[in-house]
This record gives sequence, structure tokens and C-alpha cells, in this order.
Amino acid sequence: MKEQFYQYIQNLQDTITAKLETVDGEVKFKEDLWKREEGGGGRTRVIENGAIFEKGGVNISSVHGELPEALRKQFGVEEGNFYACGLSLVLHPKNPFVPTVHANWRYFEMYNASGDIVTQWFGGGQDLTPYYLFDEDATHFHSVCKSACDAHNNTFYKRFKETCDTYFWNAHRDEARGIGGLFFDYLKETETFSMQDRFDFVTEVGDSFLESYVPIVERRRGVSFTKAHKDWQEIRRGRYVEFNLVHDRGTLFGLKTNGRIESILMSLPPAVQWVYDHHPKENSEEVRLLEVLRNPKEWV
Amino acid sequence: MKEQFYQYIQNLQDTITAKLETVDGEVKFKEDLWKREEGGGGRTRVIENGAIFEKGGVNISSVHGELPEALRKQFGVEEGNFYACGLSLVLHPKNPFVPTVHANWRYFEMYNASGDIVTQWFGGGQDLTPYYLFDEDATHFHSVCKSACDAHNNTFYKRFKETCDTYFWNAHRDEARGIGGLFFDYLKETETFSMQDRFDFVTEVGDSFLESYVPIVERRRGVSFTKAHKDWQEIRRGRYVEFNLVHDRGTLFGLKTNGRIESILMSLPPAVQWVYDHHPKENSEEVRLLEVLRNPKEWV
Repeated sequence: MKEQFYQYIQNLQDTITAKLETVDGEVKFKEDLWKREEGGGGRTRVIENGAIFEKGGVNISSVHGELPEALRKQFGVEEGNFYACGLSLVLHPKNPFVPTVHANWRYFEMYNASGDIVTQWFGGGQDLTPYYLFDEDATHFHSVCKSACDAHNNTFYKRFKETCDTYFWNAHRDEARGIGGLFFDYLKETETFSMQDRFDFVTEVGDSFLESYVPIVERRRGVSFTKAHKDWQEIRRGRYVEFNLVHDRGTLFGLKTNGRIESILMSLPPAVQWVYDHHPKENSEEVRLLEVLRNPKEWV
Repeated sequence: MKEQFYQYIQNLQDTITAKLETVDGEVKFKEDLWKREEGGGGRTRVIENGAIFEKGGVNISSVHGELPEALRKQFGVEEGNFYACGLSLVLHPKNPFVPTVHANWRYFEMYNASGDIVTQWFGGGQDLTPYYLFDEDATHFHSVCKSACDAHNNTFYKRFKETCDTYFWNAHRDEARGIGGLFFDYLKETETFSMQDRFDFVTEVGDSFLESYVPIVERRRGVSFTKAHKDWQEIRRGRYVEFNLVHDRGTLFGLKTNGRIESILMSLPPAVQWVYDHHPKENSEEVRLLEVLRNPKEWV
């Protein structure tokens, strides 16, 4: 399974970066290969200062070795080895009318002292962070997410959409990071689902990514914007930073277990503002966004 | 003691904001009074878009009530009431040759069920974060810190300077946030020091703040800078954000215990950049700063 999934995310990284380069039309991804001292490594691909993408990364990694202390604690085991691989992407567009997107699909195995697999699971999802809300875009993104889910089980979309709204909650601001999408974790073998069923589901979701996001980029890339729109985008990006550095389990885990810092923090936006006690004008588009972030909606 | 210290920080806030307004010459602090639902409140004063200060805050608060869960855990007590007051300031200058400064001086009391003080202590310190390193400025700042310490005990400066270097360590970057200063906590009554001695020390440090910082501002405010200098400042401010949101106990405590978010996060810089895998040119002034941040120096 691990070879099968790592092969999949290598191909998916190629597919996604090739398509995004075509969409951008101006700049290419820059690739960095890196090794992890304790075992494994990754292939980081970053795009900066493009026509469309101000900054973004589409990274894969495949790491293994002894379970780091933080994971031993979390799983309540005294020792053990692990294998983990995954693809993570974040795209920060220049135009404030094009939303930021994040996605991550990953696979994890844990072994006992004899090297047998004790447990294995998939996790991941994707979510959208608009700066200006177009209902049409939100519905499109969620519809693609739902179709990918529905092809496997008709309870998945509802469950994973709710988990996403809960997970990407910027608790200290009492608002969501964005308008959600899917989030799932610990997808293990059950009586109903084999690991191959899990693989088929996660790869269906991964395969749907470009369809969920690229049409939105194409629809909004030409919308003209002012410095005020850009300021609002940069202020909202501050909330993105706050979520990632204060609440995101994946980011904090990476920072505290000697991950490759530059690959982890490629998720941070290129230019960000913090304005004291900022409030947009009443009845503005900015306020409409905030209302939806405070009360996550059903989009399909 | 609590009335004595709260009176002190109210006066100190007035003194500091009045002087900083004179230094800036262009803008004034904006004041927000706020109440804490569970008891107490604060007086936040923020300055933005000044001639010198791009953003900054000089805040006081005085809060009391039942110990929040996080503190009960930390102190290993099942219940109890507390009182805490303090002054916190952060100043982010516009000119990259003027350093950012942070300071905080605070007092804490904890009570048993009968309302008697079980324990009480002072904490705080101040530290400097330059974007370009002038040895003369670093030495000045530390000399003022040392003089304030030496007036009370000749072991204080060495100890509190080391504690500062250890505390403001951006572990995931393996570098200090800045060039340090003083940091002390749990200054309780001992055989050697009464609480009044502690008060006298902390207020000596607080009184020395303007002398430690303002001469540096005056010396560098006129240095002309380019967009490249400003970009470097904004990239380094990213590290400031990373420290405050990932490692700073005070910030995380505030965010997780329903503190006033805007007063806590006034510490975040106004404009920040994250550039993937940024490395300044060899033998540059930027590299010289990084070397000192990786290997904290003795300045006096």
C-alpha cells in the first residue's frame, strides 16, 4: 500500500504542478529535493511571483524511522517505527478575488518491534479560503468535493464537511479560516471498508482537486482590484497565519519534530498585514464574508 | 502591593506614551478601555502609521477572578482565585534601521479559599529586535539594563540576560528572536529579598525603559533606507510573528483563556513577508545579524 500511494502522490504532484504552470502562464515551480536525517525525504515545489500565484507550494514527502516522541505520546505507545507519506499544497493567488486553497492527502503506517504493521490509515482533505465570497464558487468547490465522496459512500460528504468546519476553526477569533471543504483522518480498515477502498476514496478526492479549484481561478483571474481589496486580502491572510501557527496540528507537529521548516512554512502567505482592531464597513462585501465565516453554511 | 504596582504601571503607561508621542511627532496613541467578563479590564493604547512608529501598543491590564483551567494545571492546584496586572509594550518602527522593542512588567497574586495570599511574584523584562545590527545600540540597550540590575544585585544582569536569550529562542529556526535584554519570572519573597525589594527592582527596570530605547531611535531615525532594507525588515518580522504565535507563553496563554485578542495581538507587526527559503547575500549586513542571532553575544 505504501508504494502504491507514494507512486500515486508522485504522479499527482506532476499533474497538479504541470496544470498550475499552464494556468499561471508566467512562472514555473522551483524544485528542491531534501533528505531527512532520520530516514526519507521529500520533493518540494514552490511557485512565486507569478501572473496568478503570488506564492504557493505543492510538496510531497515520504519519511520513516523511529516514532518521534510527540507521536509516541499521542498514540500511547512506548516505542515503534513508522512510515508516512503525503502531498500538501497551498496556493496564495495575487488577485484578492481568487481564493486561497489548501489540500493534503496522506498515508501512515506504524510497526511493532518485529516490523509488522500494527495500524495504518489515510487522512487529508481540501478547503477554500476566499477573501471575497462568490456563492457560485463556494457551491462549485463543495459540489466537486461531494461528487468525489458520493462515488464511495453517501455519508462521507456530510461527515467530512462537518469535520472540516470544526478543524479549520480559528477559535481565538471565533470564526472559520475559510469556507471549508473536506477533512478526514484515521481512515482505517473496517468491516465495511478495506484499505484498498480507502485508497480508492482518497485518490478519487485527490484526482478531483484540479476540477474543484481551476475553474474558480479561471472565472476570477481577470477581475480588476484596487489597493483596498489587496489590503483586505492581506489582513485576512493574517488570520491564515494565526490558524496555521496557533492551531494547525500538522504545522505544529512539523515544527516540533525537526521537519523541513521551509517546506512546512511554504503555507504562509507572501505578504500579510495586521491592523489593530480592524472592522470593515457595514453592509460591505467584507462583512458578508465575515458573517459566513462565523456561521459555516451548507453549500450543496 | 497590588494597588501600589497597579498605580505604578498606570503612571508608567502615561509617561511612556507621552514621551513616544513626542518622539514620533506625527501621530498620537488611540486609547481603548475594555472590561473582562470574569473580572477586571484594561487600557490599551495603540499607535499606527506614525512618522517613526509604523505600529505599536503600550497596554496595561488588571484582571482577577477564578484561576483559569490552564493556570490551575500549571500551578497544580484544584481551585483558587488570582489577581494579575501588568504593562506590555511592543513598538514596530517604520525605518528598518530602528529596532523593534518589547517590554513587559507584571505582578501576580494567588489566593486560597479564605482569600489569603498563597503566593505572589513579579515577572517581566525587555528585549530588542534589530533588523540591522549596530553594536553601539546593542551595547547601549544592555548597559541600561545592566545598570538597573546592578543597583539592586550584582548577579541579576547575568542571570536575567541569560534567561532572556533562552526564552526568546525561536527553536524551529535555531536562532534568537533578537539580541535580548532582560527576562525574569517568579520573583518571590526570599530570605534575601522582601516583596518591597522586588517591587523596587522591577520599577527600576520599568523606569529605565525610555532611556534604554529612545536614544537608539533618535540615533537611527534619520538613516535613509531602500525597498531592499524594508523587504528584509518585513521578512525578519515574519520570524517575530512565528515566535509570538508558536512559542510565546504569554501570547498563547492569552489566546487560550479568552483574553482580549486585539490587545494581545497588537504585538504583531503591521506588514510582514514570508519568502520561500530566503538567504541574504554572503558577507552582507543581513548575514552579520543572523550570525549574532544564532550565537547570542555578551554586549557589556
